[in-house]
Amino acid sequence: MKIGIIGSGNVGGTLGSRWAQAGHQIVFSSRSPDSDAMKALIGEAGPNARAATARDAAAASDVILVATPWPSTREALTGLGDLSGKILIDATNPLLPDLSGLAVGTTTSAGEQVAQWAPGAKVVKAFNTVGSNIMANASFGDHPVVLFYCGDDAGAKQTVHELARELGFDPHDAGPLTQARLLEPFALLWISLALVQGYGREIAFQFLRR
Amino acid sequence: MKIGIIGSGNVGGTLGSRWAQAGHQIVFSSRSPDSDAMKALIGEAGPNARAATARDAAAASDVILVATPWPSTREALTGLGDLSGKILIDATNPLLPDLSGLAVGTTTSAGEQVAQWAPGAKVVKAFNTVGSNIMANASFGDHPVVLFYCGDDAGAKQTVHELARELGFDPHDAGPLTQARLLEPFALLWISLALVQGYGREIAFQFLRR
Repeated sequence: MKIGIIGSGNVGGTLGSRWAQAGHQIVFSSRSPDSDAMKALIGEAGPNARAATARDAAAASDVILVATPWPSTREALTGLGDLSGKILIDATNPLLPDLSGLAVGTTTSAGEQVAQWAPGAKVVKAFNTVGSNIMANASFGDHPVVLFYCGDDAGAKQTVHELARELGFDPHDAGPLTQARLLEPFALLWISLALVQGYGREIAFQFLRR
Repeated sequence: MKIGIIGSGNVGGTLGSRWAQAGHQIVFSSRSPDSDAMKALIGEAGPNARAATARDAAAASDVILVATPWPSTREALTGLGDLSGKILIDATNPLLPDLSGLAVGTTTSAGEQVAQWAPGAKVVKAFNTVGSNIMANASFGDHPVVLFYCGDDAGAKQTVHELARELGFDPHDAGPLTQARLLEPFALLWISLALVQGYGREIAFQFLRR
């Protein structure tokens, strides 16, 4: 699969590298495509990865992962060109800078705003609920780590399901894109436990059924 | 411990019965204290349980569990009399009737509103994130079920921690009461997966650390 990464920081860099190593064709983009950090990322990701502008990364890909800081997300998306029919994975969280809450929520969500800013794209909210360290290594012994996603296009969700499964997650469909209103606070729960409440980043959730 | 139950429906009834069976003194209250349903609940809970008015249940108890439907919560609390120094466990969720979202959120929470309506009480948000079927039986084989709580009084949280542990949960402190802004959407995630997305009610989460 051809996957464009918009925002190649901790989350975008980790996911892109692992997908490249799994055999997908990855185009990383950032505001500094010639930086040393980008060269290091390409080196780590291996021969299936290259760097480009965000617009070129989007144009070259069937699947676009958006992993930008929330304040720069709108500008990043509106610069991508025509997204009609593309699968867009929204991994953003609209965090307030002090992690005290969400900048968007309850009656809307970052996922829904992303969909408005990416007309025609098949938006799936995913990869926003755990830290990049868990994306790098989802193994907790015998315990599969749940990864929820939501969106309004069944085929796009199936693609995201497979991409999560390839990284060792236990992916589950949380419903339509409006469920991002729940997955974004769920992400902030992880973030605040990890970074504020003293649990540290090596935490995750298993989804139990009986 | 003397525990008053405000709102003796599925959640309040289940928790009160199990705590009564564990040896605590339980006073159930509802708007119909002489109903057949209340008599059946007292019969199930056994000799450690009795029924009273909400005001009497609160006055007789050190710990008060609030498990009312959200629209009747304010009236229920303001009728309880002096709550100074009481531990108040808020198990409510401000659900919209069609489960499409929360009536309160992002910049406040039901937990914080409950604290405003219960001046002097030590409010702990807890027992709102799983269904009453999980409270009745938290066993998923070898997998402990996480139960998050949050509040601003360390002693009150320790009491709630023990009450959850006695029911077989793996209790964890999610931080101050403002974290109810995250635990309430987490509850709606459980509810929507169980009731809307087709997973059914026999679901829960294990908190993993490594």
